Amino acid sequence: MLARRIDRLTSSLVRDILAAATRPDMISFAGGLPAEEALYQPSLPDGKLPDIWQYGQTEGEPRLRELVAAHGRSLGLDCTAAQVLIVNGSQQGIDLVSKLLIDEGTPVLAEAPAYLAALQAFRLFGADIRGFTVGDNGPDIEALQQQLAQTRFTYLTPTFQNPSGYCYSDAERDAVAASLDAADGILFEDDPYRDLAYDAPAPQPITGRLRRARWVYQGSFSKTLAPGLRLGYLIVHPDFITPLTRLKQAADLHSNRLSQALVADCLERNELAAHVASVLPIYRERRDAMHVALSQHLGELASWQVPVGGLFFWVKLRQPVDMRALLAAGLDAGIAVMPGDAFFAGTPDVSYLRLNFSHADPAAILTGAERLAALLHEANRLAALVA
Amino acid sequence: MLARRIDRLTSSLVRDILAAATRPDMISFAGGLPAEEALYQPSLPDGKLPDIWQYGQTEGEPRLRELVAAHGRSLGLDCTAAQVLIVNGSQQGIDLVSKLLIDEGTPVLAEAPAYLAALQAFRLFGADIRGFTVGDNGPDIEALQQQLAQTRFTYLTPTFQNPSGYCYSDAERDAVAASLDAADGILFEDDPYRDLAYDAPAPQPITGRLRRARWVYQGSFSKTLAPGLRLGYLIVHPDFITPLTRLKQAADLHSNRLSQALVADCLERNELAAHVASVLPIYRERRDAMHVALSQHLGELASWQVPVGGLFFWVKLRQPVDMRALLAAGLDAGIAVMPGDAFFAGTPDVSYLRLNFSHADPAAILTGAERLAALLHEANRLAALVA
Repeated sequence: MLARRIDRLTSSLVRDILAAATRPDMISFAGGLPAEEALYQPSLPDGKLPDIWQYGQTEGEPRLRELVAAHGRSLGLDCTAAQVLIVNGSQQGIDLVSKLLIDEGTPVLAEAPAYLAALQAFRLFGADIRGFTVGDNGPDIEALQQQLAQTRFTYLTPTFQNPSGYCYSDAERDAVAASLDAADGILFEDDPYRDLAYDAPAPQPITGRLRRARWVYQGSFSKTLAPGLRLGYLIVHPDFITPLTRLKQAADLHSNRLSQALVADCLERNELAAHVASVLPIYRERRDAMHVALSQHLGELASWQVPVGGLFFWVKLRQPVDMRALLAAGLDAGIAVMPGDAFFAGTPDVSYLRLNFSHADPAAILTGAERLAALLHEANRLAALVA
Repeated sequence: MLARRIDRLTSSLVRDILAAATRPDMISFAGGLPAEEALYQPSLPDGKLPDIWQYGQTEGEPRLRELVAAHGRSLGLDCTAAQVLIVNGSQQGIDLVSKLLIDEGTPVLAEAPAYLAALQAFRLFGADIRGFTVGDNGPDIEALQQQLAQTRFTYLTPTFQNPSGYCYSDAERDAVAASLDAADGILFEDDPYRDLAYDAPAPQPITGRLRRARWVYQGSFSKTLAPGLRLGYLIVHPDFITPLTRLKQAADLHSNRLSQALVADCLERNELAAHVASVLPIYRERRDAMHVALSQHLGELASWQVPVGGLFFWVKLRQPVDMRALLAAGLDAGIAVMPGDAFFAGTPDVSYLRLNFSHADPAAILTGAERLAALLHEANRLAALVA
């Protein structure tokens, strides 16, 4: 007999797609992988590894915590190193915050759509996830306000949201912050894509605009440096650092010290900004290539906005299709995509696909769009025959 | 409002002791830290880091999983690489197994005493922990048998147990395995100290003796190589690998690939056995030094068995003392010890101290024993005055 939460572990569809996406002949728009060319490769000045072999501190390496806190202050967060907890990438931050705040049945407020793996983790801990729409015109702030009082915390990715790509304006951020303050709420702001801004810098986080509500702000080095490092961080309201540190201790004592030393070196040498500056042209080119490819091949089949940051196009099909059949046919045809319905906690909108543009190169993006268009034409032809 | 489980996070006493133990003037018998001299330092043949910067597989690096499975088979486990899950040290294995098996109120069977941080994690998930005694004469197998039917799984550290140092005999292992089979139970065998055998090799794990009961076997590279790597592994019954992999994915996607590559290199080059062989004389010398020091200074105050493996002496005081006062006085006097009561899930036996012998060198062990004896004499003198 297993724990009840095991029944809530999501089906393996997404895992199956991502596993199939690694086939050598596959063009994958499915995951959220950085370009191979964009991966940061730390150098060891004298060819020697740092001296990090003993047990370390649960909160993280002091040097890295200081550097992260300084970064937080540069984003307008009122914080010191004592409020920083180093984690094994954002996913662990989501696990720890779930443990901090979610009982079975706890109502949680999230964007609709929202980051798939966060919804999965919240559900695993038994959350009752309520949603408010984030559409082409931004968040439905009235719907957010109406639900704040009935929910324990609000999970937001306001900057180049996964999957929609939307970036909240300054006015929207201020309105959300004021609503959270008025409701004495808790904000969990997940901000992994902030530096991947292709057209203009992102507005400052919502967290720094709060006056009363408590908060957890999460950042990651997976998208800017390298996911294999498994390193991210939480900067949190003073009330939360002690329980989160104890939860981290119970989860795995502390994060990998080698990665922490390498990232601290990178930050101290001011290499992060330079690395991001070298990555942005690669991603901007791929984003533009995907817009051109979609316009050329899917213009009559779908609509989308060009994302101003992040890693994804959020594509709305004009005619609904049998998404499972489309996915299967896509894997056969060598094109992996991610169905949009998995990103909705409540009633899913089944007309969306999420397409990643960072991992495939521009030529593959064009070929992939061609393959996808052929599948959609075929699906629509079959649907017309049935109708 | 926080989740209910936060109320179950253990008080900070142990954290306070371990934090105080890092003071430069402190002699620490409190933690379970390897000797600095015993830490494995991976070398990079060409001074270059391995190419591990992209996202990796949740289950772990295929090369490392194969090597771990081969190690498992050498210990008598019926397993393949498909049953291996790489984790961030044993603590994460405990977190994942807790998620797999524990609901609020789930009865769990554990040794009394048992590994403190496992008890804490089980409690965090709401376990109702039942105990059976492991004393100087070994496990109370009748008590184990009586409770198997009422508990969901059994957590054991049969090899150089933390804290008692006890090593189950072959006969005891066979009896436990037969009992688990008869009850159709689930065994969680935690085996981090197996290679730290100072007098004779440890008997094979209980897991390999099972015929029917399901199992999770856990190993670690923290005690044999280096804890800073944060790397351990689960080898599990086929029923458990899929849910555990999904739980790992929800917890942090995958473990640090850099550590995995370095450890796989170490294992492929057959450096693990050589490293352990270089460590054993250091620890054997310290164990013997602690026995001499305790005999010299605490012979009238306490009793103990010389541990045949692992990292700890489990010392029984002849007269009970006010343990909190002893700890505080110890930190003032520059000697950190771990109270034994924290290792009991049920009614604690307050007459024990756990003393680590791996971290301090032989001279410091002697000084530490002197300081501890002085404190105990003073505590006994005060107790006599009050009586």
